[in-house]
Amino acid sequence: MKLAVIALGGNSLIHPKERGTSEKQIERVNKTVSYLKPVIKKFSLVLTHGSGPHVGNLLLQQKISKKLLPEMPLDTLDSMVQGQLGYWIQQTVENVLHKNAVTIITRVLVDKKDKAFKHPTKPIGQKSWKKIVASPKPIEILDIKEIETLIKKNFIVVACGGGGIPVIEKSGKYVGIEAVIDKDYATQKLASQLKAEMIIFLTDVDYVYHNYGKSNQKPLRRLNVNEAIKYIRENQFKEGSMKPKIEASVEFLKKGGKKVLITSPEKLNLALKGKVGTAIE
Amino acid sequence: MKLAVIALGGNSLIHPKERGTSEKQIERVNKTVSYLKPVIKKFSLVLTHGSGPHVGNLLLQQKISKKLLPEMPLDTLDSMVQGQLGYWIQQTVENVLHKNAVTIITRVLVDKKDKAFKHPTKPIGQKSWKKIVASPKPIEILDIKEIETLIKKNFIVVACGGGGIPVIEKSGKYVGIEAVIDKDYATQKLASQLKAEMIIFLTDVDYVYHNYGKSNQKPLRRLNVNEAIKYIRENQFKEGSMKPKIEASVEFLKKGGKKVLITSPEKLNLALKGKVGTAIE
Repeated sequence: MKLAVIALGGNSLIHPKERGTSEKQIERVNKTVSYLKPVIKKFSLVLTHGSGPHVGNLLLQQKISKKLLPEMPLDTLDSMVQGQLGYWIQQTVENVLHKNAVTIITRVLVDKKDKAFKHPTKPIGQKSWKKIVASPKPIEILDIKEIETLIKKNFIVVACGGGGIPVIEKSGKYVGIEAVIDKDYATQKLASQLKAEMIIFLTDVDYVYHNYGKSNQKPLRRLNVNEAIKYIRENQFKEGSMKPKIEASVEFLKKGGKKVLITSPEKLNLALKGKVGTAIE
Repeated sequence: MKLAVIALGGNSLIHPKERGTSEKQIERVNKTVSYLKPVIKKFSLVLTHGSGPHVGNLLLQQKISKKLLPEMPLDTLDSMVQGQLGYWIQQTVENVLHKNAVTIITRVLVDKKDKAFKHPTKPIGQKSWKKIVASPKPIEILDIKEIETLIKKNFIVVACGGGGIPVIEKSGKYVGIEAVIDKDYATQKLASQLKAEMIIFLTDVDYVYHNYGKSNQKPLRRLNVNEAIKYIRENQFKEGSMKPKIEASVEFLKKGGKKVLITSPEKLNLALKGKVGTAIE
């Protein structure tokens, strides 16, 4: 079977306006995962996910408690939310989709000279508390061989959660570094390294829009690479939201990927039939 | 190659008297992992580990912050420390032992009627703060197929961290439950399900002792199953410490395991040569 990599947006896991108890969040994960039913008949699946709100919450808890307990660095917090959300997603996939699922703690190589370390841009946390952290570009997904091995054995693999754990190379060793990688860019790297057929970005909107939020906004139903590049240059897409998805899509298609779909979890079934959503080819 | 399952005691990851910054802990993981060099030449390896201090720290941080952010339940905290320690151990294995390593988020089936839920006995946390939580017996390691798959592909697999994430079956679905499984019992289940040749329990002492702490204490160099059972009945071993290791050893050998070694990480090399440590056969 061909391979699809599906990226679950942070909001499909935690509602931005809810307090986010584990019950509420698992309920939401359940709902999101249930929309994947039509895909598992046609594709092998790797699931990636955002975790901005979760890393932010953990960081805040660490700060509040720092007199009593040492704060853990961001790369370690990234690994903790990979465990947390991986567990919830994997268990839900088994309960709802009746397929074996597995979570792989995934490290991603970044460049210590990446300009992001001097100019942090990525907001993490929820409404009550936000922090801007460095978001370097992913260079290579390190734990790729185990992911490949498990796809071949027909597992649905949860990987690269929260964009992966950022590590740098230092005297021939891998060492964690404080940052949060954008999950859309990391999803592209992963999908390209795995030679996936398709990426599906599940997000808050049913379509990518031209002139989004303006009176003349228009859903984009089909885009080719050149159109996507043109719209990026025209600043059509929001930083940290739709822009990384479109940039990642362009890169994925240039590297040999066949198709990208961007839509909401609720509309995924219709999007697969070409009736809703934005297809980039 | 034959398979050995090595259980790393919580203290080989965090020093009970240190504040436990990430740097100090990773340093300690490094040291512990470096002692595994002689084993990787002879065995395929699965590594399990304790996480009592880590789960306790997380729980405390959650409690301190609970007015601002919802507390996560214990099973979710278990999954978070699996991510955290798995990441540190896996990266260290690659850096120090130069072998591919992978962390598998591992769920373990328990019985909701386990008497542990009415009579919690397991202390978690560090010196500043402890809590007694339920510690049900592991019935089955659920994520076993992916662990088997990866062992065959020559990965060193970090699994069942902190005793695994406890889940129960409820109307045909798996649901997390608030508890912390003893890592020694979970290690036995894992090793037996994987048909491992050997379990190695790495702990704070070089030997299992007869009359431990008394003036006539004596290191036990070799034990057979019947002797081990006899000493358990005589209450020779401390609850929550050496007793679960010996009980797990007996069960492992009864189920077809060939050998158990109990020693400190520092003495592992000598123990493999039969010069130090307690061998149960």
